[in-house]
Amino acid sequence: MEPLLFQQSKKKPAYPSFLTGFVRKGVPFRGAIDPFRCVAKELELVEQNLLRSIRSTEHILTEISAHLILGGGKRIRPMVTLLAFKVFGGQKTADIVDIATAIELIHTATLLHDDILDGAEIRRGKESAYKKFGLKPTLISGDFLFIKAFEFAGKFDATVVQWTADACTHLTEGEILQGFFNRNMNVTLEDYLEIVKRKTASLFQTGAKIGAYLAGASPAFVEEIAEYGLNLGIAFQMIDDVLDVVGHKELLGKPIGMDLRDGNPSLPIILAIRGGQRQVAEAFQSDHLTNEMIQATLKAIGQGSAIDKTKNYSRSYAELASKPIKKLPPSLYRDGLKTLVQLIVERNF
Amino acid sequence: MEPLLFQQSKKKPAYPSFLTGFVRKGVPFRGAIDPFRCVAKELELVEQNLLRSIRSTEHILTEISAHLILGGGKRIRPMVTLLAFKVFGGQKTADIVDIATAIELIHTATLLHDDILDGAEIRRGKESAYKKFGLKPTLISGDFLFIKAFEFAGKFDATVVQWTADACTHLTEGEILQGFFNRNMNVTLEDYLEIVKRKTASLFQTGAKIGAYLAGASPAFVEEIAEYGLNLGIAFQMIDDVLDVVGHKELLGKPIGMDLRDGNPSLPIILAIRGGQRQVAEAFQSDHLTNEMIQATLKAIGQGSAIDKTKNYSRSYAELASKPIKKLPPSLYRDGLKTLVQLIVERNF
Repeated sequence: MEPLLFQQSKKKPAYPSFLTGFVRKGVPFRGAIDPFRCVAKELELVEQNLLRSIRSTEHILTEISAHLILGGGKRIRPMVTLLAFKVFGGQKTADIVDIATAIELIHTATLLHDDILDGAEIRRGKESAYKKFGLKPTLISGDFLFIKAFEFAGKFDATVVQWTADACTHLTEGEILQGFFNRNMNVTLEDYLEIVKRKTASLFQTGAKIGAYLAGASPAFVEEIAEYGLNLGIAFQMIDDVLDVVGHKELLGKPIGMDLRDGNPSLPIILAIRGGQRQVAEAFQSDHLTNEMIQATLKAIGQGSAIDKTKNYSRSYAELASKPIKKLPPSLYRDGLKTLVQLIVERNF
Repeated sequence: MEPLLFQQSKKKPAYPSFLTGFVRKGVPFRGAIDPFRCVAKELELVEQNLLRSIRSTEHILTEISAHLILGGGKRIRPMVTLLAFKVFGGQKTADIVDIATAIELIHTATLLHDDILDGAEIRRGKESAYKKFGLKPTLISGDFLFIKAFEFAGKFDATVVQWTADACTHLTEGEILQGFFNRNMNVTLEDYLEIVKRKTASLFQTGAKIGAYLAGASPAFVEEIAEYGLNLGIAFQMIDDVLDVVGHKELLGKPIGMDLRDGNPSLPIILAIRGGQRQVAEAFQSDHLTNEMIQATLKAIGQGSAIDKTKNYSRSYAELASKPIKKLPPSLYRDGLKTLVQLIVERNF
């Protein structure tokens, strides 16, 4: 066994910089095990990888990549990947760190392209790359980060390459599907789930799967942890949706109401419409909402039952995510995976 | 040895559809060996790969990809890759076909993103995907094709993955560098060459290198064929630049004068400016040229010496590309590589 990274020392714990967000924002840790600290050493190596990978002869590519990568980010996808590796006794740290890096690079690349697609002005508490640097260099930087992810993931065997490529394909398909249901009243809960599975949960699921696979877990266990990742990702997105209605700009690092503004069918919006809130239905279909209209609609959603219902759905998927954990070999990493589910559902940022 | 694919049969030769362009347009084949027909069987497998790879649950991704892939394209990059494999006696056709597919997918992905960056309306004789389908699906389809390329290339060993990733990185860096010198009078011939090496020649070079490497060529031969690919790519781009000034819209499948319109520092533009053509210098710096101004400037460039000079430069790089060929083991594939140099320099489309 490795030394217990999560043993409490008497000194102030040296949280890596990317953890301070969670700690500062005071999320309660119900379980004894902080999932971040379980893999803090490996996450630090991921950070180093990320920084090394974005070096380029063209300074602007490095600058735009760094703008986003150094701008925070919860690093939850790499964390899931690392924990899924550790929980099955994985030893070759360098390998899993490389895959965790690839997963985060893919996520970052899609953020850059998403900001272009959404015309987003704010990301991670500051001007979006798109707003700051313009379309051309931002688009190219997204490609650049995809390529860097390929560099990290391409070293692995055909299974890992295929799973990673499939996750990326799902991301693009989820993006298209979301576009199809943009301001589209025909969207169902099934459609919503399909979008979320592809656009968000797929990368969580794939990171978890690859972590277990590279640790040498049995195919049955790989499937269990894939279920964990999938359902954790779904719960995660549902809370993202909630926070876009009732969250705080300062904690989120971006304005709320973006889903309404962009016409994205978030779960609270769909549920409010199905609950008969005509104001929400009208706002959802409108492509020229003023800020005042957005704020009024958010308030209306918050006053109805859609937020509570969405939180309940999120808890149900969190419950689904927790089930497979019980079947895993007991370890502190298993407890870390469990705490992570709580953290994700209870977060306010 | 394989059966001679290029033996003339008495019947009308069954050119694959992607070859008819060259034949129809009447490019003279000075050498006896048609490089297309040397690897026609493998190119057909590349076509099948391309078509299979663009299937998606989201129809629009397939439609946009097919719009470009079925819209023609000279398939010169896959051809170079295949010939470089065959010339060294490579046998595992499935492998080289997969890499040739990856190279063409990368090229196609960059075309989709380039059309967004340039606001291009026409590509390969029809509306560009960007014009026809809009920014969002076109951007996502570019990502989709990059991912499919990764699927094909990611199966290979670390060397192939690294070379492919490096080529892609060079593409993005070349794009940035070209943006930096957009309408920028400081651009030098050295800058031009650097842009072309990264943005165009790198993918030719990498395809050639990987072809030789996978065929088991010695490192010295891999370097020779890399030189071939690099210089062929440079000569190719220079002729592209020429055709953008004096080419025919119908043969090119796109309007001419795009470099002027977009402020791209093409070699004829740079040479005309250095030759003292003030009208060209003014047009190059202007971001609001009318069609008439573009046509008048093209005419001015055509009347000066810039086109002849660019063709001479192209011939010099073609000469550089031809040199390493002489050192290769003699074969019909070697003659195919040689003819390809001529074809590229003498083409009018």
